[in-house]
Amino acid sequence: MSATQPTNLPAAETAPGLDAADAAAAPGGEAEGPSKKAAKKAEAKAKKEALKAQRAAERATAEAAAKSAGGGASNEEVDLATENYGDVAAFATKGGLRFTDGAAPVALPQLGEEHVDKAVRLYGWIQNSRMQGAKMCFVELREQQDWTIQGVLAATKPDVQENIVSRAMVKWAGSCSFESCVVVEALVRRAPEPIKSCKVSGYELHITKFFVVAAAPQTLGLTLASANKAVNNFDDTAGGEAEAATEAAAATDKVTEGVKNLDVSAESTIAGAALGTHLDNIVMHKRAPVQQAIANVRYETEKLFREYLDSRGFKGFQAPGLIDAASEGGANVFQLTYFGKPAFLAQSPQFYKQYEIAGGRKRVFCVGPVYRAENSNTPRHMTEFTGLDMEMEIQESYHEVLHMLEGVLLHIFRGLKQRCAEDIETVRTVYPSTDFLLPEPGKEVRLTFAEGQQLLREHGPAEFRNVTDDEDMSTPQEKALGELVRQKYNTEFYVLDKFPQSARPFYTMEDPTNSEVCNAYDFFMRGQEILSGGQRIHEAGLLEARMRRKGLDPTSEGLKEYVDVFRQAGVPPHGGGGIGLDRVVAFFLNLPSVQLAAYYPRTPKRLLP
Amino acid sequence: MSATQPTNLPAAETAPGLDAADAAAAPGGEAEGPSKKAAKKAEAKAKKEALKAQRAAERATAEAAAKSAGGGASNEEVDLATENYGDVAAFATKGGLRFTDGAAPVALPQLGEEHVDKAVRLYGWIQNSRMQGAKMCFVELREQQDWTIQGVLAATKPDVQENIVSRAMVKWAGSCSFESCVVVEALVRRAPEPIKSCKVSGYELHITKFFVVAAAPQTLGLTLASANKAVNNFDDTAGGEAEAATEAAAATDKVTEGVKNLDVSAESTIAGAALGTHLDNIVMHKRAPVQQAIANVRYETEKLFREYLDSRGFKGFQAPGLIDAASEGGANVFQLTYFGKPAFLAQSPQFYKQYEIAGGRKRVFCVGPVYRAENSNTPRHMTEFTGLDMEMEIQESYHEVLHMLEGVLLHIFRGLKQRCAEDIETVRTVYPSTDFLLPEPGKEVRLTFAEGQQLLREHGPAEFRNVTDDEDMSTPQEKALGELVRQKYNTEFYVLDKFPQSARPFYTMEDPTNSEVCNAYDFFMRGQEILSGGQRIHEAGLLEARMRRKGLDPTSEGLKEYVDVFRQAGVPPHGGGGIGLDRVVAFFLNLPSVQLAAYYPRTPKRLLP
Repeated sequence: MSATQPTNLPAAETAPGLDAADAAAAPGGEAEGPSKKAAKKAEAKAKKEALKAQRAAERATAEAAAKSAGGGASNEEVDLATENYGDVAAFATKGGLRFTDGAAPVALPQLGEEHVDKAVRLYGWIQNSRMQGAKMCFVELREQQDWTIQGVLAATKPDVQENIVSRAMVKWAGSCSFESCVVVEALVRRAPEPIKSCKVSGYELHITKFFVVAAAPQTLGLTLASANKAVNNFDDTAGGEAEAATEAAAATDKVTEGVKNLDVSAESTIAGAALGTHLDNIVMHKRAPVQQAIANVRYETEKLFREYLDSRGFKGFQAPGLIDAASEGGANVFQLTYFGKPAFLAQSPQFYKQYEIAGGRKRVFCVGPVYRAENSNTPRHMTEFTGLDMEMEIQESYHEVLHMLEGVLLHIFRGLKQRCAEDIETVRTVYPSTDFLLPEPGKEVRLTFAEGQQLLREHGPAEFRNVTDDEDMSTPQEKALGELVRQKYNTEFYVLDKFPQSARPFYTMEDPTNSEVCNAYDFFMRGQEILSGGQRIHEAGLLEARMRRKGLDPTSEGLKEYVDVFRQAGVPPHGGGGIGLDRVVAFFLNLPSVQLAAYYPRTPKRLLP
Repeated sequence: MSATQPTNLPAAETAPGLDAADAAAAPGGEAEGPSKKAAKKAEAKAKKEALKAQRAAERATAEAAAKSAGGGASNEEVDLATENYGDVAAFATKGGLRFTDGAAPVALPQLGEEHVDKAVRLYGWIQNSRMQGAKMCFVELREQQDWTIQGVLAATKPDVQENIVSRAMVKWAGSCSFESCVVVEALVRRAPEPIKSCKVSGYELHITKFFVVAAAPQTLGLTLASANKAVNNFDDTAGGEAEAATEAAAATDKVTEGVKNLDVSAESTIAGAALGTHLDNIVMHKRAPVQQAIANVRYETEKLFREYLDSRGFKGFQAPGLIDAASEGGANVFQLTYFGKPAFLAQSPQFYKQYEIAGGRKRVFCVGPVYRAENSNTPRHMTEFTGLDMEMEIQESYHEVLHMLEGVLLHIFRGLKQRCAEDIETVRTVYPSTDFLLPEPGKEVRLTFAEGQQLLREHGPAEFRNVTDDEDMSTPQEKALGELVRQKYNTEFYVLDKFPQSARPFYTMEDPTNSEVCNAYDFFMRGQEILSGGQRIHEAGLLEARMRRKGLDPTSEGLKEYVDVFRQAGVPPHGGGGIGLDRVVAFFLNLPSVQLAAYYPRTPKRLLP
């Protein structure tokens, strides 16, 4: 382990050095020939020597710095550690970085007893650093989400011959900007006592090589600590920009102030930022442990949805985004030019799910984007979001569908509690929430719309004393009913069935025993709708009649093509539902906005990044 | 089992009867009151009686028909089986369909020994039917893909008291249009000898109740037999319409001709149709076993992609479809109006995958739509298709990424061969293909671009004798090289690495040891490209320099925001790739067009259905 040998030059690390090679390359279009090659060679050689000279100058500067560092009696006239630190770019011409043979690459989550007293190599971000005198520097490294470890660089004594750490190296490491990407080599040591500020608390890294792969700016647009605070403003307007300026200023203060706040999740005086600031600094927004945790919960939600349905014979498919005519009425739809003709963005995969059923696919689901051109600037709205949709044949009753949807959601909720317990806790340190209350198996709460309205009339707030059974619920009504259901049944997840005819789209099947209501349901989480669905009309004649009653023209573009599908062959009875993925995640975690659950929220005012 | 009792009225089945209820409903907006209710009741009663009368008339007609049926000495003056068959709609007013108690619903794939000599209930489509004299009718039922069974209706003797099947019922069943959706009750019997024309060959259904849930038209726009033939024309133009007319005519002939061609997969004189005809008859297109099988292979491909990456620490995410500026150059991009401003549809998730990596997500993948506004009308082009994309941090070399992508594709190919063997065979009956040749484990073929060109120069067709190493390959070159590789290495899947600089986008990392080429690769199946990828530049300065060399302005809209992301914090080295899902499916199955692998192909000339 003592002999340092050149390792294979990691291509990525030498990449910035390519500028030299780029410059040496002949301009395109020139004919290849021996004379050209010779000229190239000479040019490359000249470049190499120029860089060599530059490096020598850098070394001189470093030595000078090392001399003055700590103001002490340093006799490091020559920096003997120049091969052990620096910007990766500077090593391109020197044959690349040199790591100790056997210093295995390791990821922090995998670091364990087998690595103790051994050399390892790892990538990470500088989460924090602190000089201790002139000879020592503590560097906190982070990898992925919140995997942190304490590293230390200590200047070695003059008689040490290997793994030399110079004062200049210590100082340089301490001066590197936070959130720079570094690759280090280090000896793993057991921590004398648990390092509370780090997730990897049992070990520390005695760093012997410290290379910056990609530097962060000296002043971050959003610090990790701020990024990990609750978003304090969702209004993405000019105010947001002012906010961004303030935030940037605060960040500057933060850096100059020093590095006292090591623990990003600890209570502190660091202010939260506006969502606009977060999104303008998408890298830091995403690196915040809270956003990493939300992203994990979101991914797990989708996985749980897929696995439940897949195991029950559902097949996934993709519904198209580009459509010929505005479906479902035509309001709030984005229009584009498609080779000279108008086209539209799909507002839901509804028609296509039904085409799958008509086409004999029996049980289908799809996960994909849906678009709504609604100019609503609230924390509940987005113009693009991810739909989790399903559709299935009915054998006996549309309650088969309702139960399937109930089943998949309960599978998601229980699955999240099990698989994402740690992530849920992480989110709670920033966005507090109570455990999401679920019904016990067999005690699922399914009320009819009429029963819901009755509950509201009899036990709800005064303003809902006169709600009727044939009008759709408002958002405040839904919230109030959610509260009543929670009190009465001890669940925050329930189903409202048999919606009034007037509240549902034309393709919804009426209840054959009561024409005032439909075989249609909504599902709720914490008093907010997350799913809408029902039985669909599977027969062309009835579909046409229903369209006419709803004031729609079944011969109009978009609707005609839809009805015609049901004339092509006999379509079995079927039903389904659509779940808003962003909503499920946001309401489960009690986030203040669905935009925090999205990866790249789209609102009327924002399409960036 | 002998006592017939009314089962719960399946809502779906009675739905068409809702027309009556609809008519009875008061016009919207009218105040609710007792007098209104009474009026409604009366009206409903009147409707009911009118329908009763209508039903009586129908019964009389049926009796008359039964009398004349078979031209024989029928003494069925009264049809004693009227409760056992008919259109579901007609039963709405009679308290619904009646099934025998204990006649359990069953799906054909689940039918087994435990059902023998028992009554079952099942949904299906009439795939075929044939009268045998006046007293017997064979009906072939199909459920999902190609699950078929032979059913028989035999008129019962006059002294039979239960499960009465009248001659009228037999005749009616024989007259129902193909592809109508029916629900039947039947006794399951072991077939005296295997029924070769049906997938469920060991049993037959002795049908005792036969209800049409949704009728198909008498003349199908595309018969199942035609839908299951190879598409004979991919030119979706006016010619396609003429083709459609021809096809419709052929379908009519088919129906009038009779029902000789029971086996849809058998060789016959039935002609294939144009893709336009298929898509205009999307229900029948999808019902064809070949399309069902293709859809299964496609879904399994996506699943295999997800499971391989998920098990290796990759997290799924969704990239946005709506973007602020045309990324990657701006050509072939769809533009739309977004609240008064221009916006665009994403041509790839490239930038967003990189933002995920910059944001600390380490390993990500996404499955979603990508859009290309390219006016190409060929079997290889679509304007919307599904991308399987991944991106990951690099530790040592970008070959980590290359090997991961190779791994996921081999996992897909081997997985498909295992899990979809039957589907692959089904597709082959229509679109012949040889087994897709794979390299043995450890013998994966990875050539450099230069080696590929050399192979072409030395062993390829004469027209490729002078290909150079610094020009991208044409499609014919790729095909020729694929053939050479197959001959030399016995694989139809291989990788071409180190593409020339000129052939790759600006964000591609150059090879640090040879500035003429990039750390970038393409993957091929049967000589056709299915994947493009490489190492990306992870440092803002280098990215800017590269853009300028490519003639792009790094301060222009879209590019500026992209470069700025790499300035927000230090981004680790990373790479990835994008796979065209439609292409993988089409080339694996050797389909004549990627449009056959898509669920709803989008081309410059088609957005329907």
